[in-house]
Amino acid sequence: MSRPGIRFEVLKECPHTRARAGLLHTAHGVIETPVFMPVGTQGSVKGLTQRMLERELGVRILLANTYHLFVRPGHELIARMGGLHRFLGWPRAILTDSGGFQVFSLSALRSISDDGVVFRSHLDGAEHRFTPESALEVQQALGSDIRMVLDECTEYPASHEHARRSMERTVGWARRGLGRLREAVFPIVQGSMYRDLRRECAQRLVELDADGYAIGGLSVGEPRTVSLEMVEATEDLLPRERPRYCMGVGMLEELGEYVARGVDMMDCVLPTRNARNGYLFTTRGRVIIKHQRYREDPRPLDEQCACPTCAQYSRSYLRHLFLSGEILFSTLATCHNVWTYLDRMRRIRQAIMFGNLPNLLSSFSSQRVDEE
Amino acid sequence: MSRPGIRFEVLKECPHTRARAGLLHTAHGVIETPVFMPVGTQGSVKGLTQRMLERELGVRILLANTYHLFVRPGHELIARMGGLHRFLGWPRAILTDSGGFQVFSLSALRSISDDGVVFRSHLDGAEHRFTPESALEVQQALGSDIRMVLDECTEYPASHEHARRSMERTVGWARRGLGRLREAVFPIVQGSMYRDLRRECAQRLVELDADGYAIGGLSVGEPRTVSLEMVEATEDLLPRERPRYCMGVGMLEELGEYVARGVDMMDCVLPTRNARNGYLFTTRGRVIIKHQRYREDPRPLDEQCACPTCAQYSRSYLRHLFLSGEILFSTLATCHNVWTYLDRMRRIRQAIMFGNLPNLLSSFSSQRVDEE
Repeated sequence: MSRPGIRFEVLKECPHTRARAGLLHTAHGVIETPVFMPVGTQGSVKGLTQRMLERELGVRILLANTYHLFVRPGHELIARMGGLHRFLGWPRAILTDSGGFQVFSLSALRSISDDGVVFRSHLDGAEHRFTPESALEVQQALGSDIRMVLDECTEYPASHEHARRSMERTVGWARRGLGRLREAVFPIVQGSMYRDLRRECAQRLVELDADGYAIGGLSVGEPRTVSLEMVEATEDLLPRERPRYCMGVGMLEELGEYVARGVDMMDCVLPTRNARNGYLFTTRGRVIIKHQRYREDPRPLDEQCACPTCAQYSRSYLRHLFLSGEILFSTLATCHNVWTYLDRMRRIRQAIMFGNLPNLLSSFSSQRVDEE
Repeated sequence: MSRPGIRFEVLKECPHTRARAGLLHTAHGVIETPVFMPVGTQGSVKGLTQRMLERELGVRILLANTYHLFVRPGHELIARMGGLHRFLGWPRAILTDSGGFQVFSLSALRSISDDGVVFRSHLDGAEHRFTPESALEVQQALGSDIRMVLDECTEYPASHEHARRSMERTVGWARRGLGRLREAVFPIVQGSMYRDLRRECAQRLVELDADGYAIGGLSVGEPRTVSLEMVEATEDLLPRERPRYCMGVGMLEELGEYVARGVDMMDCVLPTRNARNGYLFTTRGRVIIKHQRYREDPRPLDEQCACPTCAQYSRSYLRHLFLSGEILFSTLATCHNVWTYLDRMRRIRQAIMFGNLPNLLSSFSSQRVDEE
């Protein structure tokens, strides 16, 4: 079914798992799903140029953080500059989050009511307010292709009672948000680590008939098996024909686990943040580049990798750049890690199309070694 | 005249000034002169990838600092990794300096004798020694295409007597250095700000019949007119058929002044260091990007510039990246500044070829405004 904002097509369902391969059509291009979205927090994926993202990495959709852009440089400025795509010089799709997660994790002196959340900017202490309506207005001003409804990120651990109240607020906010704007707006399933709350939340959000659904509030300190359980508890209630976005989770080896549970879209700061800290993901495990063992290692980070970094540079040179504090290290390491995530997702998608996802997933887990 | 290391051809001499346009042939490609060489201190031009340098900026020769690479990761490691070109993943030419300037400016506890210089690494305090012979052996291990003889950088100001003693030492070191290695080795003219010492130094170095000559010890605090005078005092004594490299000088508007005085090769950290500090060179003057006036400025940094940064990004976005401390700012700003320097040199070379350099130089000075 076509809507003005986005259109999602399921091309193939995995006969063995809940995974699907699809196409997500946006005004800024078609995205093959499942997809991993690199995070451009403040309007830049740290260390990479837009040209690298587009041409060298083949990224089709970026995530940008509404909270960060709201506090600096401001959504109104970005709107006056022609919107986020033009401001960033980025011609492809952009998803913005709701701002909720950062309000709860970064800003100070927040007070939450059913109306919305009042917070102080982490930059200058200025007081601001997000309501379900205003958070979408901000995203509309940014001009992103996919927008999230304001949600309350429940702290972990939370009592069942607290988690229920929090989930009820998120559902209420979703209703108000979708009342303000419907196109390409995703409400977010919350409910802490309680199956019953997750299921109730999903059911009530599905009644709102949104263009897609997000699963939020994961990766907040719970065991990784619990995160996967919460996705399982949610997913079978979500409409097959709408994309599902699981927010902010994923070590490399977990991507396939989420996809196998019916997730179409993922994002995570791990590949980018870990890259800058010298922690590289490879098909054979992690490489911690500062280790002495790489001092005279002439091999690329990952001999099976076709990324621009592995095509041109040795571990020895990368270690030198890291120890020397060179900017180039962040660029090359981020390029490699993002490539590795995207490549993993491409392989997963291909396995779904060919019907052999379980084989691929087991090859990943047998391949993994602790460190090269 | 052909030598194994490099070969220099003068293609055209300016009928109005001392400028020349030429070709410098190296084992890693042909370089059009006059040329500006971006500085890759620790084996990286800060903020840029080798691919950007090669493909987007068209850089044909980089400078790398012998001292920095000697103290980390070490020339022997680089030699074992296949040499500097391979270590860096850089297929084009590399010039290494002598290490002298950094020993005098960065390292601690140095003691200088006619034999050489003993110094402590600025990184770990380890004691090392450079002699004229060993400084060239280090560069030979690095495998650079053009190497510099160890010189003593005279402090400024210096008495005539001190400057003479220092110059004599530099001449003695040049004789020893060229006795150790001749191919593509440039001795360095010193003599502080004394015309007579500069001329005597040049005459004595020319007797050594080197493949090229450097003019060093400038930009150490003297007035800019004095730097130019010292080049003038030196240049007419240097052989026409050998390249002249003026070390470490040059605001954008000065490039043409040096070239008009017979300089073929230049390097300077200004375009790269200033870029990271938010100071941009444009054809219409400087842009200090943090200024409020650029907050909502949708124009590129320089409307006449064809660099990748100006093709894709606004001043408003660049200011946002700078204020947000994004790595991407350093990359985009450095790309622009280096492009601007290279483009300036290309225009200067073309004007020499067409015989209209004075017109171009006067157009530069009339074009310049203090700030856009």
